[in-house]
Amino acid sequence: MAFKEEAAEWFKGLQENICKGLCEADLNVRIQEDVWERPGGGGGRSRAFTDGVYIEKGGVNFSAVHGPTPDKILAAFKLEKADFFATGVSIVMHPRNPFVPIIHMNVRYFEMSNGTYWFGGGIDLTPHYVVRQEAQEFHLKLKKVCDAYHTSYYPEFKRWADDYFYNPHRRETRGVGGIFFDRLQATETISKAERWAFVRSVGEEFLNCYVPLLLKNGYAPYSVEHQAWQRLRRGRYVEFNLVYDAGTKFGLETDGRTESILMSLPPLAAWEYDHKTLPNSPEQATLDLLKKGINWIETPVSTLA
Amino acid sequence: MAFKEEAAEWFKGLQENICKGLCEADLNVRIQEDVWERPGGGGGRSRAFTDGVYIEKGGVNFSAVHGPTPDKILAAFKLEKADFFATGVSIVMHPRNPFVPIIHMNVRYFEMSNGTYWFGGGIDLTPHYVVRQEAQEFHLKLKKVCDAYHTSYYPEFKRWADDYFYNPHRRETRGVGGIFFDRLQATETISKAERWAFVRSVGEEFLNCYVPLLLKNGYAPYSVEHQAWQRLRRGRYVEFNLVYDAGTKFGLETDGRTESILMSLPPLAAWEYDHKTLPNSPEQATLDLLKKGINWIETPVSTLA
Repeated sequence: MAFKEEAAEWFKGLQENICKGLCEADLNVRIQEDVWERPGGGGGRSRAFTDGVYIEKGGVNFSAVHGPTPDKILAAFKLEKADFFATGVSIVMHPRNPFVPIIHMNVRYFEMSNGTYWFGGGIDLTPHYVVRQEAQEFHLKLKKVCDAYHTSYYPEFKRWADDYFYNPHRRETRGVGGIFFDRLQATETISKAERWAFVRSVGEEFLNCYVPLLLKNGYAPYSVEHQAWQRLRRGRYVEFNLVYDAGTKFGLETDGRTESILMSLPPLAAWEYDHKTLPNSPEQATLDLLKKGINWIETPVSTLA
Repeated sequence: MAFKEEAAEWFKGLQENICKGLCEADLNVRIQEDVWERPGGGGGRSRAFTDGVYIEKGGVNFSAVHGPTPDKILAAFKLEKADFFATGVSIVMHPRNPFVPIIHMNVRYFEMSNGTYWFGGGIDLTPHYVVRQEAQEFHLKLKKVCDAYHTSYYPEFKRWADDYFYNPHRRETRGVGGIFFDRLQATETISKAERWAFVRSVGEEFLNCYVPLLLKNGYAPYSVEHQAWQRLRRGRYVEFNLVYDAGTKFGLETDGRTESILMSLPPLAAWEYDHKTLPNSPEQATLDLLKKGINWIETPVSTLA
């Protein structure tokens, strides 16, 4: 079996395992599965989540598509005409409870008929209310996954996530970040097999990162004010995904499957003109932490909220 | 007084008149005015509308900004370095009632220190439920304004609106269109003064287009299902504005005033995975009419819903 097929099979299994784990955590959640074909070649299996006790709306999508490389990619990377193959798993979960964070994960493999290939992906967390201890634990888990492969991974990919998941027009990060990486190839010291093992470890870490957060605050009491704030934060999530997210833009521009691409959008989002938070409020404390470059792991425990 | 200053003064007066007209129609609406300065030069007067009986959220914005022309514009139009001056009025209104359409208007003037100038703008209507008779009346009003200047204006600018206010990833127009025009300069047969008179006529038509629609259905009874559909349609409005709208993209990319740029976003918008309308429903009838190239004016009366 060619590597690309092996990768696609593995990603498909990952989708299966993650769906199982989420269903075990949220017994009420409904899953709508759509198996689709791409007119240009390949297809996918989209799984839309709704109506859970914990999960209000989300998706766990697998795809393996191929065909002539879109001109947009050729131009962006200054490549000659070639066929491409791309496979991966994409997840976004919008929880019902404002005290549970939104999570996003993507792991993917891309190759072209000329021999070029790369891995990409990442996991990042978007709390409606930032809790430093939760952010710290999340980053510690990611660092552990990274450190098993290379000590440069965590600091490099953490910084990459800070830079990538950023709304410049709001001067805000999307959330507390996580890790992000793209175009990972073999180097003189790191083999393709090691890159692939790392990507698989990231995918396998998803449930361990998110299920405890779902269970911890899934039943926490909240007010209409907390819910209103959650909707405003979801509005910012929409702004990032529609204005800046490379995957969304690329998908829409290359005539991808719209319903799978936009599965990342929240069930309900709000916008208010020039919303102001109250001084010393939890909402203001959250905004103060939506900054690049925060060292979540080494923040002195005494300052943890 | 230089023409650009005259234009800015006129636009400022237009903002004033439109705000007055909307307040007379919706006695409860609250207006928050923000006068702001642009670090690079000039500024604006934003007026955010909320909490009306008819208008749930909206804005009527005036601005007159100047400074070195942003590199993005220079590159897009292959221009040499020059200073620019831009002034205009921008409006979006999100009504509370699902049976009242969203409206958008923009009228603007742009000039550069090298003598280049142009006018741009348009009005378009986005009903949550399309009513052919209303679309016909709206287009008849715009055609009358256009025909007073040039018989080519309406057909040309109507087609431009169809092409511009379009969500390709949904294969849907944003609404029933209207008129859109950009880069209007003097020609051998049309003077700058005539272009300017046309742009003013478009601005002056706003209240006549919208107030009757506000009053007609502002108190129409509606169900939670109608409201849910309204929120989904607002979601599409967000998609257009954040993914495609040139003004929004340009504003965000050139570090414009975010709160004024994003005043166009709705108070509350929803996304559902792969939403399906019921056959023969009013929602499906609306989707069937979100197409380019519909001749709203000459549609036989017998087919008007």
